[in-house]
Amino acid sequence: MAAELTAHDLIEKHRPTLDQALETIRTRAYWSPHPEHPKAYGENGTLSAADGKAAFDALLGRRFDLDQPGTDAWTGGEVSPYGPELGIEYPHPDIDVLLPAMRAAIPAWRDAGAEVRAAVCLEILARISARTHEFAHAVMHTSGQAFMMALQAGGPHAQDRGLEAVTYAYVDQVRTPEAADWSKPQGKRDPLNLRKQFTPVPRGIALLIGCNTFPTWNGYPGLFASLATGNPVLVKPHPRAVLPLALTVRVAREVLAEAGFDPDLVALAAERPGEGIAKTLALRPEVKIIDYTGSTAFGDWLEANARQAQVYTEKAGVNTVVIDSTDNYRGMLANLAFSLSLYSGQMCTTPQNLLIPRDGITTDAGPKTYDEVLGDLSDAVGGLLGDDARASALLGALVNPDVKARLEAAGGLGEVALASRDITHPEFPDAVVRSPVIVKLDGSKPDTESVYLDECFGPVSFAVAVDSTADAVELLRRTIRDKGAMTVGAYTTSADTERALEEVCFEECAQLSLNLTGGVYVNQTAAFSDFHGSGGNPAANAALCDAAFVANRFRVVEVRREA
Amino acid sequence: MAAELTAHDLIEKHRPTLDQALETIRTRAYWSPHPEHPKAYGENGTLSAADGKAAFDALLGRRFDLDQPGTDAWTGGEVSPYGPELGIEYPHPDIDVLLPAMRAAIPAWRDAGAEVRAAVCLEILARISARTHEFAHAVMHTSGQAFMMALQAGGPHAQDRGLEAVTYAYVDQVRTPEAADWSKPQGKRDPLNLRKQFTPVPRGIALLIGCNTFPTWNGYPGLFASLATGNPVLVKPHPRAVLPLALTVRVAREVLAEAGFDPDLVALAAERPGEGIAKTLALRPEVKIIDYTGSTAFGDWLEANARQAQVYTEKAGVNTVVIDSTDNYRGMLANLAFSLSLYSGQMCTTPQNLLIPRDGITTDAGPKTYDEVLGDLSDAVGGLLGDDARASALLGALVNPDVKARLEAAGGLGEVALASRDITHPEFPDAVVRSPVIVKLDGSKPDTESVYLDECFGPVSFAVAVDSTADAVELLRRTIRDKGAMTVGAYTTSADTERALEEVCFEECAQLSLNLTGGVYVNQTAAFSDFHGSGGNPAANAALCDAAFVANRFRVVEVRREA
Repeated sequence: MAAELTAHDLIEKHRPTLDQALETIRTRAYWSPHPEHPKAYGENGTLSAADGKAAFDALLGRRFDLDQPGTDAWTGGEVSPYGPELGIEYPHPDIDVLLPAMRAAIPAWRDAGAEVRAAVCLEILARISARTHEFAHAVMHTSGQAFMMALQAGGPHAQDRGLEAVTYAYVDQVRTPEAADWSKPQGKRDPLNLRKQFTPVPRGIALLIGCNTFPTWNGYPGLFASLATGNPVLVKPHPRAVLPLALTVRVAREVLAEAGFDPDLVALAAERPGEGIAKTLALRPEVKIIDYTGSTAFGDWLEANARQAQVYTEKAGVNTVVIDSTDNYRGMLANLAFSLSLYSGQMCTTPQNLLIPRDGITTDAGPKTYDEVLGDLSDAVGGLLGDDARASALLGALVNPDVKARLEAAGGLGEVALASRDITHPEFPDAVVRSPVIVKLDGSKPDTESVYLDECFGPVSFAVAVDSTADAVELLRRTIRDKGAMTVGAYTTSADTERALEEVCFEECAQLSLNLTGGVYVNQTAAFSDFHGSGGNPAANAALCDAAFVANRFRVVEVRREA
Repeated sequence: MAAELTAHDLIEKHRPTLDQALETIRTRAYWSPHPEHPKAYGENGTLSAADGKAAFDALLGRRFDLDQPGTDAWTGGEVSPYGPELGIEYPHPDIDVLLPAMRAAIPAWRDAGAEVRAAVCLEILARISARTHEFAHAVMHTSGQAFMMALQAGGPHAQDRGLEAVTYAYVDQVRTPEAADWSKPQGKRDPLNLRKQFTPVPRGIALLIGCNTFPTWNGYPGLFASLATGNPVLVKPHPRAVLPLALTVRVAREVLAEAGFDPDLVALAAERPGEGIAKTLALRPEVKIIDYTGSTAFGDWLEANARQAQVYTEKAGVNTVVIDSTDNYRGMLANLAFSLSLYSGQMCTTPQNLLIPRDGITTDAGPKTYDEVLGDLSDAVGGLLGDDARASALLGALVNPDVKARLEAAGGLGEVALASRDITHPEFPDAVVRSPVIVKLDGSKPDTESVYLDECFGPVSFAVAVDSTADAVELLRRTIRDKGAMTVGAYTTSADTERALEEVCFEECAQLSLNLTGGVYVNQTAAFSDFHGSGGNPAANAALCDAAFVANRFRVVEVRREA
């Protein structure tokens, strides 16, 4: 059967994008081929806002067929954090049928080579990009993200991260040539001559274990890094956030088939309620790579038990902002207020602990006491979220009842500096929308440590009073070392304090944002430029996206012969 | 204190070598800056044969001081496999003193940057290279390698592997720029501008656990990969092979101090008899990287238990040669005879199982039965090793009593095709020198599998009779998958068989040498061109040397500020 998409055409179409991506991961300047603006879609074969919404609506209340081998049942029970049941059923796999089918797909995909694989991956991403509006609704109604964030973070930003992974995968595979002629002089005798061929080979089946809050953004790096290095990818979505990854699998299978490859290179593993299929899959001998985003407990379990696989984990952490001093007090407050509010603090990068000297800080608006800082920050949050419609568009909905329970319990953990407010979503009255709570804790009291050194995922921050900035720096060090951190923020006008903060982040391996007062927030990273996490502290054993994230997903097999 | 070696001078001196190495790992053509010929040494500050021998002799029978912090005792008991006791005592570490001293050395080494670190590493290698003759005696009298092999494999080839590791470390650290200006357009509003700085940071202390047979060759890749990426390296040599690595540590400490860095960036951890210090060190929280060569049992223990560290292991494997057919029968026999004999089969790359169809093979010298092949191979080995002096120069000495015991037991495992011969070393009558044994086994008998699927390290090969070449290919697959393999060799004139062998090696991830009949042997690999192992089967979880071997020894910490 002739492929509808030839390798030549795919390479011709996507090589310029790949080349620009290759250049950008070297310069780390700004670049993205995926538009952020909702109105950028609707032409050139891309779905408009209305068409995207219609496409999403058409998925609801029915089976989502993928034509995978080994489907033994149908399962699904997603309920939108905004209220509606999605009513979609997905294929449940008989893994003894599905895994062998995926393995059988390997040789042709491996033999296609790195460039063809990259081009096929870019075609998959291009088709996903064209359906960004459809994905936006899918992400919104599984993660609880507000629509605009679901469109941007779940769409172009996730696609960027996928492309970034393809780019690293490509460059790492082609750094060894396909063949070499080796000739070793032997003095007066004839040289020794060998012809050597080098083939990047995949490890085996890659398992992607998706998360509830960022199914595409956190899923695409591992998915595309594995696929681009030749591995079939089995996608096990979070049971509350199946749809965005099911759509992804469907697009990938379509493109693979059109390009003449076995669509079983990408498959979905939806699970029955309470089945815990991830544990079963993770220990299968065919599974050689695992990408996981989620709780520390299961991440640690995977690292300890899935010994046959390369395991890449992003787990829990405790993110800190050190507040020492600022020359832009209003900017600092506005920036922090936004960071704490965005998606109700349900980002792995949201600050949790604000370390503030109990004697206050210096600012361009004069000295501010600890309580004044909290009062002003609370006012900033209040102003940002004063209008319910605007607040809903920033906060989104709480993703699940656990987050709501943590939020409600937070008031009992200390004195409340800013209380959470119950917000009515203008369109979805059943959505649970809450503004963030800020709780005061005294860092010098030993019994508070067990509170603020625990990840409290959701819209809960702790304003930890410390004796001095030096104390804050040491607490930061201990927090990163013991609990991990995806992000560190700090505000200071002191060069010495900056240097001390940098040294802690170098030694404990955490990413540092200094004095952000404008439109960039500590919880946001940009593909091709920022690393997401460091891979060097307990919050994650890998960074998105770098050489270490891709280099061990394939191996190079050498065949040598006398020339 | 001003450094005697400035960064500028070191870079000027070594940058051309680094550039050539960078080019060579891309082309994988032949190159080495380290001469193989013994007579190449003696000028330009390098030790001649006589001076190298004198330098080695001067080390014997005394303390080997390294001026390390935290030396609480002196220990050592090396006995040359050639007979003499070395009588050298090494510092035994108080690790609660030594490890903090090593950690304290990190910041300045990190801040020096990738290029300075590479240049310092190249200076260390250059000084080691200049003392190649001294190292040759140290390797010979700890590993039992014959002098010429000790000089070449323990000298220039090991130095090449170290340089290769520095090269990969350098290129992977500089692929992210030191700084970037990021400017994201915001439509009609001002763009978002950030200044980003990227710093490669080390993981922590790296532990190198050396082996008995190739202390420098197997040790240098990990040592230099870790050091070049900013990590201090604690060298824990095999208790029978301390001297080559102690010399290495001494040279490294000298160069580091002269270049203005803390010499404690490289330190030795010699152990008391039976102390098992590797287990203690491997679990220390300061130890973040471990490189290990040795038994599967301890390698598996490290991987399972040293969870705080990145663990790179080379363990046991079972290497296979499939003998299907050849158009150069004499060449094949000569090549195999040499491979089986070199260093008494005490290489992790030596073939163990020769899979030969029981109905024989086709050759340019006519069809040969299974027994004829073994007879002719035995004759080839006999011819190669007929003269005791020449045999000693190829075989070296058995490295320890365990190898001798295995060799002596091998005769009871099956019918002996070629018996081992006791050889008298012309210079060292106490050396245990033995020619290899070849034992016949019937692959169709289930009880033989437990024999040939076990690594029998030393000069023991099994000639496994198989029903067909197809059976051999399947047995090869099972051997790699279940036991691992550092090398695979094969002889065939059939394109179909070549393709089947390649497919097995791609799928099970093993390095394949086809139809070697000349002066390159399956058990030899060349730095900058060949990979050593694949990192993808149970024999090793890493290959020497590739991007995956270095990429996770450092992380990149980003500091970003508004521009």
